[in-house]
Amino acid sequence: MSKPKAVVLLSGGMDSATTAAIASSRGFEVVALSFRYGQRHVVELDAARRIAEQLQLARHLVLDIDLGAIGGSALTAQTAVPKDTPVEEIGHRIPPTYVPARNTIFLAFALAVAEVVGAEDIFIGANALDYSGYPDCRPEYFQAFQRLVDLATRAGTEEGRRIRINAPLLELTKASIIERGLALGVDYGMTVSCYDPSPQGTACGHCDACLLRLKGFRESGIEDPAHYQTAGR
Amino acid sequence: MSKPKAVVLLSGGMDSATTAAIASSRGFEVVALSFRYGQRHVVELDAARRIAEQLQLARHLVLDIDLGAIGGSALTAQTAVPKDTPVEEIGHRIPPTYVPARNTIFLAFALAVAEVVGAEDIFIGANALDYSGYPDCRPEYFQAFQRLVDLATRAGTEEGRRIRINAPLLELTKASIIERGLALGVDYGMTVSCYDPSPQGTACGHCDACLLRLKGFRESGIEDPAHYQTAGR
Repeated sequence: MSKPKAVVLLSGGMDSATTAAIASSRGFEVVALSFRYGQRHVVELDAARRIAEQLQLARHLVLDIDLGAIGGSALTAQTAVPKDTPVEEIGHRIPPTYVPARNTIFLAFALAVAEVVGAEDIFIGANALDYSGYPDCRPEYFQAFQRLVDLATRAGTEEGRRIRINAPLLELTKASIIERGLALGVDYGMTVSCYDPSPQGTACGHCDACLLRLKGFRESGIEDPAHYQTAGR
Repeated sequence: MSKPKAVVLLSGGMDSATTAAIASSRGFEVVALSFRYGQRHVVELDAARRIAEQLQLARHLVLDIDLGAIGGSALTAQTAVPKDTPVEEIGHRIPPTYVPARNTIFLAFALAVAEVVGAEDIFIGANALDYSGYPDCRPEYFQAFQRLVDLATRAGTEEGRRIRINAPLLELTKASIIERGLALGVDYGMTVSCYDPSPQGTACGHCDACLLRLKGFRESGIEDPAHYQTAGR
Protein backbone atom coordinates (compact mmCIF):
# COMPACT_ATOMS: atom_id res chain seq x y z
CA MET A 1 0.00 0.00 0.00
CA SER A 2 1.34 3.46 -0.82
CA LYS A 3 1.89 5.94 1.97
CA PRO A 4 -0.60 8.75 2.53
CA LYS A 5 0.72 12.09 1.33
CA ALA A 6 1.20 15.27 3.31
CA VAL A 7 2.12 18.76 2.15
CA VAL A 8 4.60 20.37 4.56
CA LEU A 9 5.40 24.07 4.47
CA LEU A 10 9.22 24.17 4.61
CA SER A 11 10.85 27.55 5.10
CA GLY A 12 14.33 26.32 5.92
CA GLY A 13 14.04 27.35 9.55
CA MET A 14 14.20 25.04 12.56
CA ASP A 15 10.46 24.89 13.16
CA SER A 16 9.54 23.81 9.66
CA ALA A 17 12.45 21.33 9.51
CA THR A 18 11.19 19.76 12.74
CA THR A 19 7.66 19.70 11.35
CA ALA A 20 8.83 17.90 8.19
CA ALA A 21 10.61 15.32 10.35
CA ILE A 22 7.45 14.84 12.43
CA ALA A 23 5.32 14.33 9.30
CA SER A 24 7.84 11.78 7.99
CA SER A 25 7.90 9.97 11.32
CA ARG A 26 4.11 9.67 11.19
CA GLY A 27 4.41 7.69 7.97
CA PHE A 28 3.56 10.37 5.43
CA GLU A 29 5.12 10.72 2.02
CA VAL A 30 6.11 14.37 2.35
CA VAL A 31 5.69 16.94 -0.41
CA ALA A 32 7.66 19.93 0.91
CA LEU A 33 6.56 23.36 -0.25
CA SER A 34 8.73 26.48 -0.17
CA PHE A 35 8.26 29.95 -1.59
CA ARG A 36 10.54 32.40 -3.31
CA TYR A 37 8.51 35.36 -2.13
CA GLY A 38 10.97 38.21 -2.32
CA GLN A 39 12.42 37.51 1.13
CA ARG A 40 15.72 39.22 1.86
CA HIS A 41 16.94 36.03 3.49
CA VAL A 42 16.85 33.80 0.37
CA VAL A 43 19.59 31.62 1.85
CA GLU A 44 16.70 29.93 3.66
CA LEU A 45 15.68 28.38 0.32
CA ASP A 46 19.07 26.66 0.05
CA ALA A 47 18.57 25.49 3.61
CA ALA A 48 15.11 24.14 2.70
CA ARG A 49 16.61 22.20 -0.21
CA ARG A 50 19.34 20.67 1.99
CA ILE A 51 16.83 19.77 4.68
CA ALA A 52 14.51 18.13 2.14
CA GLU A 53 17.45 16.03 0.92
CA GLN A 54 18.69 15.11 4.37
CA LEU A 55 15.21 14.05 5.51
CA GLN A 56 14.75 12.21 2.20
CA LEU A 57 11.44 13.91 1.51
CA ALA A 58 9.60 12.63 -1.56
CA ARG A 59 9.37 15.99 -3.31
CA HIS A 60 10.33 19.63 -2.82
CA LEU A 61 8.32 22.21 -4.70
CA VAL A 62 9.45 25.87 -4.75
CA LEU A 63 6.81 28.33 -5.93
CA ASP A 64 7.44 31.89 -7.04
CA ILE A 65 5.13 34.46 -5.54
CA ASP A 66 5.97 38.09 -5.52
CA LEU A 67 5.07 39.36 -2.07
CA GLY A 68 7.68 42.08 -2.50
CA ALA A 69 5.38 43.72 -5.07
CA ILE A 70 2.83 44.14 -2.27
CA GLY A 71 5.32 45.48 0.26
CA GLY A 72 4.54 46.22 3.85
CA SER A 73 7.17 44.11 5.58
CA ALA A 74 10.76 44.44 6.70
CA LEU A 75 11.30 40.89 5.43
CA THR A 76 10.67 41.85 1.81
CA ALA A 77 12.09 45.38 1.87
CA GLN A 78 15.28 47.19 2.71
CA THR A 79 13.78 48.35 6.01
CA ALA A 80 15.80 47.59 9.12
CA VAL A 81 15.01 44.36 10.94
CA PRO A 82 14.74 45.02 14.71
CA LYS A 83 17.77 43.84 16.67
CA ASP A 84 18.40 42.96 20.30
CA THR A 85 14.79 43.16 21.44
CA PRO A 86 14.72 41.87 25.04
CA VAL A 87 13.64 38.27 24.50
CA GLU A 88 10.82 38.49 27.06
CA GLU A 89 9.27 41.31 25.01
CA ILE A 90 9.24 39.39 21.72
CA GLY A 91 5.71 38.39 20.78
CA HIS A 92 3.95 41.11 22.76
CA ARG A 93 3.29 43.25 19.71
CA ILE A 94 3.36 42.70 15.96
CA PRO A 95 6.87 43.48 14.71
CA PRO A 96 7.83 45.09 11.35
CA THR A 97 9.02 41.69 10.13
CA TYR A 98 5.36 40.63 9.95
CA VAL A 99 4.53 39.84 6.31
CA PRO A 100 0.85 40.71 5.74
CA ALA A 101 -1.31 37.60 5.39
CA ARG A 102 1.75 35.41 4.80
CA ASN A 103 0.50 32.29 6.54
CA THR A 104 -2.89 32.68 4.85
CA ILE A 105 -1.15 32.88 1.47
CA PHE A 106 1.18 29.97 2.22
CA LEU A 107 -1.64 27.77 3.52
CA ALA A 108 -3.81 28.64 0.51
CA PHE A 109 -1.04 27.39 -1.80
CA ALA A 110 -0.52 24.32 0.38
CA LEU A 111 -4.23 23.64 0.01
CA ALA A 112 -4.00 23.87 -3.77
CA VAL A 113 -1.01 21.50 -3.81
CA ALA A 114 -2.77 19.09 -1.43
CA GLU A 115 -5.78 18.99 -3.73
CA VAL A 116 -3.63 18.35 -6.78
CA VAL A 117 -1.34 15.67 -5.31
CA GLY A 118 -4.16 14.02 -3.34
CA ALA A 119 -2.82 14.79 0.14
CA GLU A 120 -5.27 14.82 3.02
CA ASP A 121 -2.85 16.48 5.44
CA ILE A 122 -1.07 19.82 5.51
CA PHE A 123 1.62 20.52 8.11
CA ILE A 124 2.78 23.96 9.19
CA GLY A 125 5.48 24.65 11.77
CA ALA A 126 3.73 27.57 13.43
CA ASN A 127 4.36 28.10 17.08
CA ALA A 128 2.31 30.16 19.49
CA LEU A 129 4.58 30.08 22.54
CA ASP A 130 8.11 31.22 21.65
CA TYR A 131 6.97 33.20 18.64
CA SER A 132 7.23 36.65 17.16
CA GLY A 133 3.69 37.87 17.87
CA TYR A 134 2.28 37.40 14.38
CA PRO A 135 -1.55 37.24 14.46
CA ASP A 136 -1.62 34.33 12.01
CA CYS A 137 0.25 32.05 14.41
CA ARG A 138 -2.54 31.85 16.98
CA PRO A 139 -4.41 28.54 17.57
CA GLU A 140 -7.77 30.15 16.78
CA TYR A 141 -6.40 31.25 13.43
CA PHE A 142 -5.65 27.65 12.46
CA GLN A 143 -9.10 26.54 13.62
CA ALA A 144 -10.61 29.16 11.34
CA PHE A 145 -8.43 28.00 8.45
CA GLN A 146 -9.58 24.42 9.00
CA ARG A 147 -13.19 25.57 8.76
CA LEU A 148 -12.36 27.40 5.55
CA VAL A 149 -10.66 24.34 4.09
CA ASP A 150 -13.70 22.22 4.86
CA LEU A 151 -15.74 24.56 2.66
CA ALA A 152 -13.19 25.63 0.07
CA THR A 153 -12.14 22.52 -1.69
CA ARG A 154 -13.23 19.84 -4.00
CA ALA A 155 -12.34 17.39 -1.22
CA GLY A 156 -14.67 19.25 1.14
CA THR A 157 -17.59 18.50 -1.15
CA GLU A 158 -16.89 14.79 -1.56
CA GLU A 159 -17.97 12.24 0.95
CA GLY A 160 -15.47 11.20 3.59
CA ARG A 161 -12.48 13.14 2.31
CA ARG A 162 -11.18 16.01 4.34
CA ILE A 163 -7.93 17.96 4.26
CA ARG A 164 -6.58 18.48 7.77
CA ILE A 165 -4.37 21.37 8.88
CA ASN A 166 -1.74 20.10 11.33
CA ALA A 167 0.34 22.49 13.43
CA PRO A 168 2.22 20.04 15.68
CA LEU A 169 4.52 22.67 17.22
CA LEU A 170 1.74 25.10 18.09
CA GLU A 171 1.88 24.60 21.86
CA LEU A 172 5.56 23.65 22.19
CA THR A 173 8.41 25.76 23.55
CA LYS A 174 11.46 26.22 21.35
CA ALA A 175 13.40 23.96 23.73
CA SER A 176 10.96 21.08 23.33
CA ILE A 177 10.85 21.61 19.56
CA ILE A 178 14.64 21.17 19.51
CA GLU A 179 14.48 18.02 21.66
CA ARG A 180 11.75 16.57 19.45
CA GLY A 181 13.70 17.38 16.28
CA LEU A 182 17.00 15.95 17.53
CA ALA A 183 15.23 12.71 18.45
CA LEU A 184 13.99 12.54 14.83
CA GLY A 185 17.42 13.21 13.33
CA VAL A 186 17.01 16.84 12.30
CA ASP A 187 20.37 18.49 11.63
CA TYR A 188 19.84 22.00 12.99
CA GLY A 189 23.18 23.04 11.51
CA MET A 190 21.37 23.03 8.18
CA THR A 191 18.52 25.26 9.28
CA VAL A 192 18.50 29.03 8.89
CA SER A 193 16.31 30.98 11.30
CA CYS A 194 17.80 34.46 10.95
CA TYR A 195 15.76 37.30 9.41
CA ASP A 196 18.90 39.14 8.37
CA PRO A 197 21.73 36.72 7.55
CA SER A 198 24.93 37.57 5.71
CA PRO A 199 24.97 36.72 1.97
CA GLN A 200 26.85 33.54 2.96
CA GLY A 201 24.00 32.58 5.28
CA THR A 202 25.66 33.34 8.61
CA ALA A 203 23.03 34.30 11.19
CA CYS A 204 23.13 37.79 12.69
CA GLY A 205 22.52 36.57 16.23
CA HIS A 206 20.46 39.63 17.16
CA CYS A 207 17.10 39.59 15.31
CA ASP A 208 13.98 38.22 17.01
CA ALA A 209 14.31 34.88 15.22
CA CYS A 210 17.94 34.43 16.30
CA LEU A 211 17.16 35.47 19.86
CA LEU A 212 14.26 33.01 20.15
CA ARG A 213 16.38 30.25 18.65
CA LEU A 214 19.34 30.93 20.95
CA LYS A 215 17.00 30.97 23.94
CA GLY A 216 15.59 27.59 22.85
CA PHE A 217 19.01 25.99 22.62
CA ARG A 218 20.06 27.56 25.91
CA GLU A 219 16.98 26.17 27.65
CA SER A 220 17.44 22.71 26.16
CA GLY A 221 21.08 22.68 27.28
CA ILE A 222 22.27 21.88 23.76
CA GLU A 223 24.74 23.88 21.74
CA ASP A 224 23.31 25.55 18.63
CA PRO A 225 25.24 24.17 15.63
CA ALA A 226 24.45 27.29 13.56
CA HIS A 227 27.15 29.87 12.82
CA TYR A 228 26.58 33.38 14.12
CA GLN A 229 28.28 36.63 13.20
CA THR A 230 28.14 37.63 16.88
CA ALA A 231 26.06 36.02 19.57
CA GLY A 232 23.02 37.94 20.85
CA ARG A 233 21.70 38.02 24.38
CA MET B 1 -11.51 63.78 3.65
CA SER B 2 -9.96 61.05 1.54
CA LYS B 3 -12.11 58.18 0.31
CA PRO B 4 -11.94 54.82 2.06
CA LYS B 5 -10.02 52.25 0.06
CA ALA B 6 -11.22 48.89 -1.21
CA VAL B 7 -9.30 46.08 -2.86
CA VAL B 8 -11.32 44.58 -5.73
CA LEU B 9 -10.37 41.28 -7.36
CA LEU B 10 -10.56 42.04 -11.08
CA SER B 11 -10.28 39.11 -13.48
CA GLY B 12 -11.44 40.88 -16.62
CA GLY B 13 -14.73 39.00 -16.71
CA MET B 14 -18.19 40.54 -16.44
CA ASP B 15 -18.73 39.66 -12.78
CA SER B 16 -15.56 41.29 -11.51
CA ALA B 17 -16.05 44.34 -13.77
CA THR B 18 -19.53 44.79 -12.30
CA THR B 19 -18.12 44.35 -8.81
CA ALA B 20 -15.49 47.04 -9.42
CA ALA B 21 -18.23 49.41 -10.63
CA ILE B 22 -20.30 48.65 -7.52
CA ALA B 23 -17.33 49.35 -5.22
CA SER B 24 -16.70 52.65 -7.04
CA SER B 25 -20.36 53.60 -6.81
CA ARG B 26 -20.25 53.04 -3.05
CA GLY B 27 -17.58 55.73 -2.76
CA PHE B 28 -14.46 53.59 -2.46
CA GLU B 29 -11.10 54.40 -3.93
CA VAL B 30 -10.58 51.11 -5.74
CA VAL B 31 -7.30 49.22 -5.83
CA ALA B 32 -7.92 46.55 -8.47
CA LEU B 33 -5.97 43.31 -8.15
CA SER B 34 -5.37 40.85 -10.99
CA PHE B 35 -3.18 37.77 -11.28
CA ARG B 36 -0.99 36.38 -14.01
CA TYR B 37 -1.41 32.83 -12.75
CA GLY B 38 -0.62 30.75 -15.80
CA GLN B 39 -4.18 30.95 -17.14
CA ARG B 40 -4.56 29.93 -20.79
CA HIS B 41 -6.91 32.85 -21.29
CA VAL B 42 -4.38 35.64 -20.58
CA VAL B 43 -6.36 38.02 -22.79
CA GLU B 44 -8.45 38.53 -19.66
CA LEU B 45 -5.55 40.54 -18.20
CA ASP B 46 -5.75 43.00 -21.08
CA ALA B 47 -9.47 43.18 -20.45
CA ALA B 48 -8.82 43.86 -16.75
CA ARG B 49 -6.49 46.71 -17.66
CA ARG B 50 -9.01 48.28 -20.05
CA ILE B 51 -11.81 47.95 -17.49
CA ALA B 52 -9.66 49.55 -14.77
CA GLU B 53 -9.02 52.48 -17.10
CA GLN B 54 -12.61 52.85 -18.22
CA LEU B 55 -13.90 52.77 -14.64
CA GLN B 56 -11.10 55.18 -13.63
CA LEU B 57 -9.96 52.96 -10.80
CA ALA B 58 -7.25 54.47 -8.61
CA ARG B 59 -4.76 51.64 -9.08
CA HIS B 60 -4.42 48.30 -10.88
CA LEU B 61 -1.94 45.82 -9.44
CA VAL B 62 -1.08 42.64 -11.38
CA LEU B 63 0.69 39.96 -9.35
CA ASP B 64 2.58 37.00 -10.74
CA ILE B 65 1.77 33.68 -9.12
CA ASP B 66 2.58 30.44 -10.79
CA LEU B 67 -0.48 28.25 -10.31
CA GLY B 68 0.51 26.38 -13.47
CA ALA B 69 3.45 24.89 -11.51
CA ILE B 70 0.87 23.26 -9.22
CA GLY B 71 -1.31 21.98 -12.05
CA GLY B 72 -4.63 20.27 -11.59
CA SER B 73 -6.86 22.48 -13.73
CA ALA B 74 -7.95 22.73 -17.33
CA LEU B 75 -7.55 26.52 -17.00
CA THR B 76 -3.79 26.29 -16.49
CA ALA B 77 -3.05 23.26 -18.68
CA GLN B 78 -3.53 22.08 -22.23
CA THR B 79 -6.44 19.89 -21.15
CA ALA B 80 -9.69 20.37 -23.05
CA VAL B 81 -12.19 22.83 -21.62
CA PRO B 82 -15.71 21.29 -21.64
CA LYS B 83 -17.93 22.65 -24.40
CA ASP B 84 -21.69 22.79 -24.95
CA THR B 85 -22.68 21.52 -21.53
CA PRO B 86 -26.49 21.88 -21.29
CA VAL B 87 -26.77 25.15 -19.38
CA GLU B 88 -29.16 23.71 -16.79
CA GLU B 89 -26.49 21.15 -15.86
CA ILE B 90 -23.72 23.71 -15.26
CA GLY B 91 -22.98 24.05 -11.56
CA HIS B 92 -24.22 20.60 -10.55
CA ARG B 93 -20.74 19.15 -10.28
CA ILE B 94 -17.21 20.55 -10.08
CA PRO B 95 -15.89 20.91 -13.64
CA PRO B 96 -12.26 20.40 -14.81
CA THR B 97 -11.89 24.17 -15.12
CA TYR B 98 -11.89 24.35 -11.31
CA VAL B 99 -8.51 25.74 -10.18
CA PRO B 100 -7.68 24.21 -6.80
CA ALA B 101 -8.01 26.72 -3.97
CA ARG B 102 -8.01 29.64 -6.41
CA ASN B 103 -10.40 31.90 -4.54
CA THR B 104 -8.60 31.13 -1.28
CA ILE B 105 -5.29 32.11 -2.89
CA PHE B 106 -6.74 35.23 -4.53
CA LEU B 107 -8.47 36.37 -1.32
CA ALA B 108 -5.30 35.73 0.69
CA PHE B 109 -3.40 38.08 -1.62
CA ALA B 110 -6.23 40.61 -1.50
CA LEU B 111 -5.97 40.47 2.26
CA ALA B 112 -2.24 41.18 2.13
CA VAL B 113 -2.80 44.12 -0.23
CA ALA B 114 -5.64 45.45 1.95
CA GLU B 115 -3.38 45.38 4.98
CA VAL B 116 -0.59 47.19 3.16
CA VAL B 117 -2.69 49.91 1.48
CA GLY B 118 -4.94 50.35 4.53
CA ALA B 119 -8.17 49.14 2.92
CA GLU B 120 -10.93 47.88 5.19
CA ASP B 121 -12.94 46.33 2.37
CA ILE B 122 -12.26 43.56 -0.13
CA PHE B 123 -14.67 42.92 -3.02
CA ILE B 124 -14.95 39.69 -4.95
CA GLY B 125 -17.35 39.06 -7.84
CA ALA B 126 -18.25 35.52 -6.86
CA ASN B 127 -21.69 34.34 -7.74
CA ALA B 128 -23.53 31.36 -6.31
CA LEU B 129 -26.57 31.26 -8.61
CA ASP B 130 -25.50 31.21 -12.28
CA TYR B 131 -22.11 29.74 -11.51
CA SER B 132 -19.86 26.89 -12.50
CA GLY B 133 -20.20 24.75 -9.37
CA TYR B 134 -16.88 25.67 -7.75
CA PRO B 135 -16.93 24.92 -4.00
CA ASP B 136 -15.22 28.22 -3.16
CA CYS B 137 -18.11 30.26 -4.54
CA ARG B 138 -20.60 29.21 -1.87
CA PRO B 139 -21.90 31.76 0.67
CA GLU B 140 -20.70 29.65 3.62
CA TYR B 141 -17.22 29.69 2.14
CA PHE B 142 -17.13 33.49 2.29
CA GLN B 143 -18.45 33.49 5.85
CA ALA B 144 -15.58 31.18 6.80
CA PHE B 145 -13.09 33.44 5.05
CA GLN B 146 -14.42 36.43 6.97
CA ARG B 147 -13.87 34.56 10.23
CA LEU B 148 -10.32 33.76 9.12
CA VAL B 149 -9.64 37.38 8.22
CA ASP B 150 -10.83 38.51 11.62
CA LEU B 151 -8.11 36.34 13.15
CA ALA B 152 -5.39 36.49 10.51
CA THR B 153 -4.42 40.08 10.26
CA ARG B 154 -2.77 42.90 12.02
CA ALA B 155 -6.06 44.78 11.59
CA GLY B 156 -7.88 41.94 13.35
CA THR B 157 -5.78 42.52 16.45
CA GLU B 158 -6.27 46.26 16.63
CA GLU B 159 -9.30 47.79 18.20
CA GLY B 160 -12.15 48.78 15.93
CA ARG B 161 -10.51 47.97 12.60
CA ARG B 162 -11.83 45.08 10.60
CA ILE B 163 -11.36 44.02 7.01
CA ARG B 164 -14.67 43.03 5.44
CA ILE B 165 -15.11 40.55 2.60
CA ASN B 166 -17.85 41.80 0.25
CA ALA B 167 -19.36 39.55 -2.41
CA PRO B 168 -22.16 41.78 -3.75
CA LEU B 169 -23.09 39.47 -6.65
CA LEU B 170 -23.33 36.33 -4.55
CA GLU B 171 -27.10 35.96 -4.70
CA LEU B 172 -27.73 37.65 -8.07
CA THR B 173 -28.61 36.00 -11.38
CA LYS B 174 -26.41 36.77 -14.37
CA ALA B 175 -29.29 38.80 -15.83
CA SER B 176 -29.53 41.05 -12.77
CA ILE B 177 -25.73 41.39 -12.65
CA ILE B 178 -25.86 42.70 -16.23
CA GLU B 179 -28.68 45.14 -15.43
CA ARG B 180 -26.81 46.40 -12.36
CA GLY B 181 -23.57 46.81 -14.34
CA LEU B 182 -25.19 48.65 -17.26
CA ALA B 183 -26.78 51.07 -14.82
CA LEU B 184 -23.30 51.77 -13.44
CA GLY B 185 -21.74 52.30 -16.87
CA VAL B 186 -19.88 49.01 -17.26
CA ASP B 187 -18.92 48.37 -20.90
CA TYR B 188 -19.42 44.62 -21.24
CA GLY B 189 -17.80 44.76 -24.67
CA MET B 190 -14.52 45.09 -22.79
CA THR B 191 -15.03 42.07 -20.58
CA VAL B 192 -13.78 38.59 -21.40
CA SER B 193 -15.63 35.69 -19.81
CA CYS B 194 -14.51 32.83 -22.04
CA TYR B 195 -12.34 30.03 -20.66
CA ASP B 196 -10.95 29.25 -24.11
CA PRO B 197 -10.78 32.39 -26.25
CA SER B 198 -8.84 32.75 -29.51
CA PRO B 199 -5.40 34.43 -29.21
CA GLN B 200 -7.14 37.64 -30.34
CA GLY B 201 -9.56 37.35 -27.43
CA THR B 202 -12.65 36.26 -29.34
CA ALA B 203 -14.88 34.14 -27.10
CA CYS B 204 -15.54 30.52 -28.07
CA GLY B 205 -19.28 30.72 -27.33
CA HIS B 206 -19.41 27.14 -26.06
CA CYS B 207 -17.56 26.82 -22.72
CA ASP B 208 -19.48 27.00 -19.42
CA ALA B 209 -18.51 30.65 -18.91
CA CYS B 210 -19.73 31.66 -22.38
CA LEU B 211 -22.94 29.69 -22.00
CA LEU B 212 -23.74 31.28 -18.62
CA ARG B 213 -22.96 34.71 -19.99
CA LEU B 214 -25.09 34.24 -23.12
CA LYS B 215 -27.96 32.96 -20.95
CA GLY B 216 -27.65 36.07 -18.78
CA PHE B 217 -27.84 38.44 -21.71
CA ARG B 218 -30.71 36.46 -23.23
CA GLU B 219 -32.66 36.65 -19.95
CA SER B 220 -32.03 40.37 -19.55
CA GLY B 221 -33.18 40.99 -23.14
CA ILE B 222 -29.96 42.83 -23.97
CA GLU B 223 -27.59 42.00 -26.76
CA ASP B 224 -24.15 40.79 -25.64
CA PRO B 225 -21.58 43.22 -27.09
CA ALA B 226 -18.83 40.54 -26.97
CA HIS B 227 -17.57 38.91 -30.15
CA TYR B 228 -18.03 35.15 -30.48
CA GLN B 229 -16.41 32.68 -32.84
CA THR B 230 -19.76 30.88 -33.08
CA ALA B 231 -22.73 31.31 -30.78
CA GLY B 232 -23.46 28.46 -28.33
CA ARG B 233 -26.84 27.30 -27.16
